[in-house]
Formats: sequence, C-alpha cells, structure tokens
Amino acid sequence: MDIATLIGIIGGLGLILASMASGGSLASFFNVPGLMIVVGGTCAAVLINESLQQVLGALKVGMQAFLVRRMSGEETIQKVLELAGKARKEGLVSLENEKIDDACLAHGVQLGVDGLSPDTIEAILRAELSALKQRHQRGQTIFRFMGSTAPAMGMVGTLVGLVQMLKELDDPSAIGPAMAIALLTTLYGAVIAFVICNPIASKLEHRTAEEVAQKQLAIVGVESILKGENSMVIQSKLEAFLAPKAKKGRDGSDQ
Amino acid sequence: MDIATLIGIIGGLGLILASMASGGSLASFFNVPGLMIVVGGTCAAVLINESLQQVLGALKVGMQAFLVRRMSGEETIQKVLELAGKARKEGLVSLENEKIDDACLAHGVQLGVDGLSPDTIEAILRAELSALKQRHQRGQTIFRFMGSTAPAMGMVGTLVGLVQMLKELDDPSAIGPAMAIALLTTLYGAVIAFVICNPIASKLEHRTAEEVAQKQLAIVGVESILKGENSMVIQSKLEAFLAPKAKKGRDGSDQ
Amino acid sequence: MDIATLIGIIGGLGLILASMASGGSLASFFNVPGLMIVVGGTCAAVLINESLQQVLGALKVGMQAFLVRRMSGEETIQKVLELAGKARKEGLVSLENEKIDDACLAHGVQLGVDGLSPDTIEAILRAELSALKQRHQRGQTIFRFMGSTAPAMGMVGTLVGLVQMLKELDDPSAIGPAMAIALLTTLYGAVIAFVICNPIASKLEHRTAEEVAQKQLAIVGVESILKGENSMVIQSKLEAFLAPKAKKGRDGSDQ
Amino acid sequence: MDIATLIGIIGGLGLILASMASGGSLASFFNVPGLMIVVGGTCAAVLINESLQQVLGALKVGMQAFLVRRMSGEETIQKVLELAGKARKEGLVSLENEKIDDACLAHGVQLGVDGLSPDTIEAILRAELSALKQRHQRGQTIFRFMGSTAPAMGMVGTLVGLVQMLKELDDPSAIGPAMAIALLTTLYGAVIAFVICNPIASKLEHRTAEEVAQKQLAIVGVESILKGENSMVIQSKLEAFLAPKAKKGRDGSDQ
Amino acid sequence: MDIATLIGIIGGLGLILASMASGGSLASFFNVPGLMIVVGGTCAAVLINESLQQVLGALKVGMQAFLVRRMSGEETIQKVLELAGKARKEGLVSLENEKIDDACLAHGVQLGVDGLSPDTIEAILRAELSALKQRHQRGQTIFRFMGSTAPAMGMVGTLVGLVQMLKELDDPSAIGPAMAIALLTTLYGAVIAFVICNPIASKLEHRTAEEVAQKQLAIVGVESILKGENSMVIQSKLEAFLAPKAKKGRDGSDQ
Repeated sequence: MDIATLIGIIGGLGLILASMASGGSLASFFNVPGLMIVVGGTCAAVLINESLQQVLGALKVGMQAFLVRRMSGEETIQKVLELAGKARKEGLVSLENEKIDDACLAHGVQLGVDGLSPDTIEAILRAELSALKQRHQRGQTIFRFMGSTAPAMGMVGTLVGLVQMLKELDDPSAIGPAMAIALLTTLYGAVIAFVICNPIASKLEHRTAEEVAQKQLAIVGVESILKGENSMVIQSKLEAFLAPKAKKGRDGSDQ
Repeated sequence: MDIATLIGIIGGLGLILASMASGGSLASFFNVPGLMIVVGGTCAAVLINESLQQVLGALKVGMQAFLVRRMSGEETIQKVLELAGKARKEGLVSLENEKIDDACLAHGVQLGVDGLSPDTIEAILRAELSALKQRHQRGQTIFRFMGSTAPAMGMVGTLVGLVQMLKELDDPSAIGPAMAIALLTTLYGAVIAFVICNPIASKLEHRTAEEVAQKQLAIVGVESILKGENSMVIQSKLEAFLAPKAKKGRDGSDQ
Repeated sequence: MDIATLIGIIGGLGLILASMASGGSLASFFNVPGLMIVVGGTCAAVLINESLQQVLGALKVGMQAFLVRRMSGEETIQKVLELAGKARKEGLVSLENEKIDDACLAHGVQLGVDGLSPDTIEAILRAELSALKQRHQRGQTIFRFMGSTAPAMGMVGTLVGLVQMLKELDDPSAIGPAMAIALLTTLYGAVIAFVICNPIASKLEHRTAEEVAQKQLAIVGVESILKGENSMVIQSKLEAFLAPKAKKGRDGSDQ
Repeated sequence: MDIATLIGIIGGLGLILASMASGGSLASFFNVPGLMIVVGGTCAAVLINESLQQVLGALKVGMQAFLVRRMSGEETIQKVLELAGKARKEGLVSLENEKIDDACLAHGVQLGVDGLSPDTIEAILRAELSALKQRHQRGQTIFRFMGSTAPAMGMVGTLVGLVQMLKELDDPSAIGPAMAIALLTTLYGAVIAFVICNPIASKLEHRTAEEVAQKQLAIVGVESILKGENSMVIQSKLEAFLAPKAKKGRDGSDQ
Repeated sequence: MDIATLIGIIGGLGLILASMASGGSLASFFNVPGLMIVVGGTCAAVLINESLQQVLGALKVGMQAFLVRRMSGEETIQKVLELAGKARKEGLVSLENEKIDDACLAHGVQLGVDGLSPDTIEAILRAELSALKQRHQRGQTIFRFMGSTAPAMGMVGTLVGLVQMLKELDDPSAIGPAMAIALLTTLYGAVIAFVICNPIASKLEHRTAEEVAQKQLAIVGVESILKGENSMVIQSKLEAFLAPKAKKGRDGSDQ
C-alpha cells in the first residue's frame, strides 16, 4: 500500500483520538451498541446491493491497484520505440518472444503477431480498457456508498438514542450522559465516512485515471508499431500524453 | 431473490431493532400516526408521478432481474463459438433450430436466419438494449424517489409534532415524550430511505449494468457469427469484455 | 388529468391534515403571514426568472401532456405497416389523404408526399423532437425551481419568526406558541416542495420521456416508409422499441 | 430589464420586509456587522476567483442579455426566405448591401458574400456560438457562486455570534437578543441567495438558451441560403425549431 | 499571483476577524486542539488519496497558472497571420527559426517543419491539450476535496467537544464556554472551505478554461498555417473565438 495513504489514515485517526483523550478518558468515546449500529448497519446496506463475492472481488481489484507497480510513461515510450524499431527491421513476427512488462502492450503485440488486423486489435484493446474502467468503478462505488451510508446510520443511531432519552426525562442529571451517547453514533458515522471511506474512494478514482492514461498510451503505441511508423512520429505522438517536465523541457511554460 | 440482499435487509433492520430494544421496550418506538404519515405520504408522492400500472410493471421487471438466472460470460462465449463454427460449416440457416438460452443471442440469430442484413440486425439489437435500459431505469427511479421522499415526509411529521407540542407548553413533564414521538417520524423516514430504498435502488442499478454488459457481449457475438469470423478472432474479441481472472491468467497483473 | 395523480395529491395532503387534526384543532396550523411569505415568496422568485407568458405557456404544455391521449406503440406500428404497404403498392403520393392520428407520423408522411428527400425529412423531424424536449423541460424546470425555493422561503420565514421571538424573551409562557408559529413556515415549505412540486416535476419528466419514445418510434417508421422496406423488417425494427410483453412473448425472459 | 424580474424582486423583498415589520419594528432586523460579514464576505469570495474586469464584463453581458431586443423566430424565418429568394434570383453577391438585424445571420451572409466556402462559414458561426455560450455561462457562474457562498457566510456569522454569546452566559436575559443577532446573518445569507442570486442565475440561463436557439435558427438559415434551397424546404426546416402554436396550427396536438 | 485574489483572501479573512474582535478579544476564537483537528484532519484526508509528490506537482501547476503571463487572443491571431503569410511566401521550412512565445503554437509549427502530416500534428496537439486539462483538473480536485473535507472535520471536532461537555454536566456555568469551544471547529471548517478552498478551486477552473480556449485558438491557427489558407479566412476563423468587443465592433449587439 502507498505509504502516504497509511500515514494519512493513521495521522487522521490519531489526531481525532488525541483530541478525544485531551478532554478526559478515551473510554467515554467507546460505545459497543453505537459501533454495532453504525458499522453493522453500513455493512448490511452494502450486502443488500452487492453480493459477498462482488465485494471481495472489488476489494481485491482495489488492493491490486494499490500494490502492483506500473511502468512509468517514459519506460513505456522507450519500450514502444524499441519494439517498433525491431518490427520495422525484422518484421512483426520477430516480436513473438519479446518480454514485455506492460500487460496491455504485450497483449496488443501478441494479437498483432497472431495476425489480427490493426482495426480489430484496437477494438479489442479499447473493449478491454472499457471493461477495466467498469470493474474499477465498482470498487469506488462500494466505498462511496459506505461513505454516504455511514453518516445516515449514525443519524439513525442518534435518533434512537434521543427517543430513548426523551421518554425518560425524569432525572435531569441523566440527560447529559444519555445525549452524549446518542451523539456518539453520529460521530462514528462522520469519522468512518470522512476519514476512511471517502478518501479511499477518491484514491481509487485517481488510480483508475492513472491506469487508464497508461493503457491509452500503450494502445496508441501498439497502433504505431502495427502501422510501422518511424520513431520521430511515435515519440511525438506518445510524449503528448506526458506532463511537460517529462519532455526534457523543450518549452519552458506550463502547458 | 439474492440471499445476500435478504441477509442485508434482515440484518440491518435487526441491528436497529436490537439497539431500540436495548433501551427499554420496542413498543415506545411504534407509533401508528407517524408510520401513516411517512409510509402513506411516500406512497402518495409515488402515485402522483407514476400510474399504478407503471409501478407494478417496474416492480415486476425489478423482481425478474433478481430472480432470472443469466448465462455467465464464459457460457455465452462458448455458445457463440459453437454457433459460429456450425454457421461456417453448414451455413447460417442451419442455426434455425438451435436451442439458445440467451434471449438476445437467440433473437439476433433468428433475425439472421430470417435474412435481415447484419447492419439492420445490429440496429435492432441495440434499439432493444437501449429500450431495456430505459425500462430498468424506471424501476430504479421509483426506489430513488422513495428514498428521497421518505426522509422529507419524516421531517414533515416531526414538524407537525413539534408544532403540536409547542402549542401546549404548560406541562413540562409532557415535553419529553411528545418530542420523542415527534422524532419518531424522522427515524422512520431515515430507516426506510437508508436501510431499504437506497440500497435496493443501487442493487437494481448494478443488475442493469450486468445485464447490459451481458447483452453487449451477445450483440458482438451475433455480429461475429453473421460476418463468419474465425474462432480465434471471436474469442479475442469477446474475452476483452471479461475480467482477467476469467481469461486463464494469460497476463498476471490486474488489467 | 391522470386519476392516480389526483388520488396521490389528495391522499398525501389528507394524511398530513389528518395527523395535524389528531393533536387538536387544524386552526393552529393555519397562519396567514406564514403562507404569504412561503407561497408569495416562491411565486416572486419564479417571476424573477420567467416572464408571466412563459409560465403560462409552460403550464399549458404541461397540462396538455396530462390530458391528450396518445396512440400506443402497438397502434403506431400497425399504422406504419399499413401505410408502408400502401406506399409500396400505390406509391408514396397515395398517402396524401390518409388520416393519421400521430402528429409526428402525419408530418413526416406529408413532407414525403411534398417530395423532400428522406435525409431532409429525418433532420426536420429530429429538430422538432429536440425543440419539443426543450419546451417540455422548461415546464419541469419551473416546478423543480419551486420545489427548491419553497423550503428556502420556509427557512427565511422561520428565521424571521425566531428573531422576533428571541428579541422578547421576557415572558417564558409565550416562547412555545411563538416558536410553533415560526416553525409553520418550514412546514409549509416542506409540504409544497415534497408533496406537490417535486412529484409533479417528476411526472412531467416521465411524460416527456414517454412522448419522446413515441416520437422516436414514429421517426423510425417514417424512415422505413420512405425507404420502402418490407413489412417484416419494419416490424422487427419497430418492436425493438417496445417492452417484451408487447411482443407476443417470443422470448420468455425479461429482456 | 424585464418588468417581471423587477416585480419579482420587489415583491419578494416586500413580502419578507412586511413579515418582519408585522412583529414589531424593522430596525431589529438591521445589523451592520452582520450585513458586512455576509455581503462583504461574499464579494471577497467572488474577487478571489474572478478578476474585477471579468466580473464587470460578465455583468455587462448579462445586462445586455436583459435589455437588447431580439428578432422573433418568425421574423428570422421571413428574413431568411426573403434573402434566399433574392440570392436565387440575383446571386449571392446581391445580398451585400442588405440590412439584416440579426447579427449572426448578417455575419454569415457577409462571409458568404466574401466568398468563403459553406463549410468554413458554418464552422465559423458554430465557433462563435460556442464562444458566446461560454461567455454567458461565466455570468451565470458568478451569480450561482454568490448564491452558494452567501448562506455559508451567513453560517460563519452566526457561528461567530454564537461563540461570543456562549462565552458570556452570565446574564440569562441577554441570551435571547444576542442569539437573535447571531441568527440575522443566516437570514441575510438566505435572502441574498434565494430571493436574489439564484433566480437571477436561472434567468440568465434561460436567456442564454433562448439566444442559442435563435442563433441555431440563423445558422441553419445561412446554410440554406448558401445552398440555394427552395423556399418550401427552408420553411419546413426552420419551422421545426418553433413551438407548434407558431406553425399556424397545422396539427392540433401538442408536439 | 493575481492581485484580486490576494485582496479577496485578505479582505474576506479581515472582515471575519473584525467581526470576531467586535465582540471582545480575538483570543477567545483561538483554540489549538480545534485547529489541529480541522487543519490536520483535512491534510491527513488529502494524504490518503494523493501522494505527497502529486500534491506538490498539482500545486506547482496551479501556481504557474496564476503567475505565467499568456499571450492575449489578439496577439496570437496577429502571430498566426504573420506566420501564415511567411509560410505561403517562403515555404513552411522558413518558419524553423521563428521565435514564437505561445508554446502550443511553437510546438505545432515545429512539428510541421519536421515534416509530420497535418492530421498527425492535430492529433498530437489535441492529445497534449487533453493531457493538460487532466493535469489541471487534478489541482482543482485537491482544493475541492479540501473544501468538502474541512467542514466535515469541523463537525467531527464539534461532536467530540459536545460529547466531552455532556459527560460532565454538573457545573452549569461551564456549559457555555465548553460549547463555544466545541463550535469553534465548525467555524474553522466553514472558513477554510468557503473563504479559502472553494474560491481557489473555482479560480483554477476558470484559469484552465481560459488556457484551454487559448490553446484551441492556437491549434486552429496551426491547422490554418499548414493548409496555407489565405489571411482573410484565417482571421474570420480565429476571431470567432473572441468576444465581440475584440472584433472592432463589426456588429453592435451582444453576440
């Protein structure tokens, strides 16, 4: 997992726990029925709209997105240039036994070696890209859904607590602690949503965007290899996808 | 119905009921006029924008989506390969009496046997797919609308209760219970929306996405059969729609 | 007007009035200045962004959408098949004096009889459809705007009431009733928005969707007539727009 | 300015002022620091994301949109038919000295007289239309931004007031008036947003839509003139953009 | 940095600080644990979904967008006309050593001198434009995310404070100050979001829109140079992107 993500989650929770502890004991912020209603209720709501298998699958895809190292854009461009040069000299079939790390690039080259037409290959790679986007969005959707359900469950818990408190308003000294406990579920819901679920959903979204950009680069590279374009054209085409700093500063401004 | 959905609804409601019971009797959370205003008001609002017939139709479509078993993507690919092989050997007409489970695939093959041009067939199947999407969205819309109306009705009920309570502020000991009852409608609205309606709407959305993906696979399959493509091309094209794990792990990374 | 809409509005308001009456007299929920600020303020806000003429025009379009009976999809298909058959036998000009109920179908056939090219006719019908969509959205927009403005006006009224109450906090016995009156405007705003305006806006949206689907069917039908396609192709094309139950159950599953 | 807009703003503010005055003196609703924090804070936030020049430019465009009279759709159609007739009889160059009120139509005809190709002219007019849409949206964006910032500034002011009040809770008789003043900023924010900014933003949006529709009519008209189409085709094409009532009631239903 | 932005931020914060000071000492609005939970918690949430490197990169891109001076639209048009004239007279290669300030224009001309086909050049420039949009949106996304997370963190802090206060309700005189401190985090969250983050995100959005418009002008200019169009056509094409006031008032109305 990304080290920044870990620091973020630990730091965020740590700050909140520290501020809780500053006013007395942490124990007064711990309430089992409240946790059950918020965490349990959120999980139940997720189960309603996702089968267990899908939740696990989406989490696995998400985890892989965190862990698997990708080639950088520059590495992909170098590899494409190398493959295109070899294909122009020795023919497309000579790429058969090339070792290619990027899965999308490897698949495209393999299909080319298999003799499929460039149009069919592009259609296949774009269909794979679109299927990948849909799978990744599934994972984001689960975290977004949890991020919107947890505060609602917190509100339900607080309402249950308030009704219980208001029914027995005889003892004024009990009002404060009872209301404190009622508010705890709202607090749990807010922490789960805003410190954990929403930022993770955003991270998955960014990762998907990066992976899609990387695969689009690979698809354009495969097209160029199949068309046998010369290396200057390929380099110009592919560098357009990179940020300016990666382009050796040909032009100074931010473009 | 999906077993996970059932577990989710029962588990979610169970947790909330347990937390209610923990503070005394469940009876104090039961209030007939409150239930009437929230459930009745939500149903009335649905009736305003949907005829009864449409509500029932949409629910039936929704239920069918839960119950009908679909072919998996792999099964569809196998069937397409088999049909394509037969069509190449014995001609398209030989598919006339094939038994095909997938309705979209069956319809496309039937239209091909009837002699329509591939372009017309694709247009027809895509029009059916788009009409199906619209029908399914209707069902989601009803649940989403209930999910946004129920909390509003809960707020209306709470406001009515608060006004009634505030009018007669003579007896301080009556304030607590009266306010508890006023808050109950907000609680009902939140539970109906966040534990029942919203998750079901999300589930219908996921089901529609799965069914659309399945039908897109079938449409591409029908095209391939009509064009008489060879089996390697068909397999490459169709497998692009599946998750990598279903592709025999040709490439190890998550793509 | 749709009977379901009427039942919904009366039922919804009835339930709320009944719950108001259950706590004493209805009169305590009636407050003229409060009604003026919410209803009057909402109308004023609508006047700011729409001229009176546009409001009346949009309401008329909306009312027509409720009242005018449309041909069902099956009727349109039957009519298209009949016209196409006649056009193939006796030429397009023979359709000149045909009586056609569907306005879009009639206009398309008339333009064909007038000798315009199929491409021009399709462009004209699509431009009409797009203009119709924009006119109908105008009506929805007005109700949506009222649905979001009414609660805001209710909040303004409640704030005015609260400030007035808080300025004179001398007599504790007056706090309750004064606050009750302040809350009434919030209640008015919520009822106007959630029981009346939002459901009507949703209904107009559904009606527009139905009318657009109907006109798309007619446009495809006109194209088929002009191209002189045979009846089996026309039927296959047009039935793709209908729900499966209207297709004589050729395939059993929900598609 | 539109008379309805003026009536709406005066009527809306009048109703609110009347309801304020009904409970005593208007003076108790006037609070200079509160007004400063809401109005000043909103202006400051606008300055952060717009240069002064852009704010003034956008307001000028907005004002022009209110004041400049436009040709009606029917007038534009008449003018196009007249120009097309003259161009067919005397050649395109004869339009050189025609006086044309609609700026878009005039520009298109001028470019035609200058000898540019129809494709280039259409591209130029569409680019102008798209640039116009972006300029107008800028004005709407400013009012929408103010409409969302004003309530937030009102909340900030109320929070400041509440904190000040709560710090000095010694004198119970001072709580009411202090809280009343704290609530005033929320009231100011709501009135500025919901009675002034949001409706004006909506009005600008409607005006832009009308102007865009008008210009699209003119662009199609210019195309027809350049292609030398006959008047029946032009009339059919252009009338498709108008509401049915403007089409001499050829078909009775709402289409 | 834009002077208006600076004035806006200082003015907005100044107004709020002045209103705070008006009720006593500013010190009572300063609370270290509260600031830590809001500022720290927001930063932690940002770290979860963005690596530190990305945050810094996005901020640098954002800062550059504020600081780098761009050519105005009129300057770009003049330069394009000049380059096109030279290219028509002396050939495209004569542009090799031209000094061109606009990076996009310079890159397009360079690629043309290098001998790439116009279609490839347009594809490359559009890919660069689309990559630029994505990089800039990243910066906006970070500020938008902070603008939605800060109020949530403020709410978490207030809930923590309320629970601590309610647990120890023995001393009524301590309630006010404790609640004042609890409310401070909500205040911090609102100020950070509505006075700082949201307006800056909006400003970045406007800047991106301006830069994209500028680059689209340059891309159309490069196309025109490569096609060797004459200067009247180029001027007509490019001026379509400018506001009417920059077009020498050829037509008086707002278009």
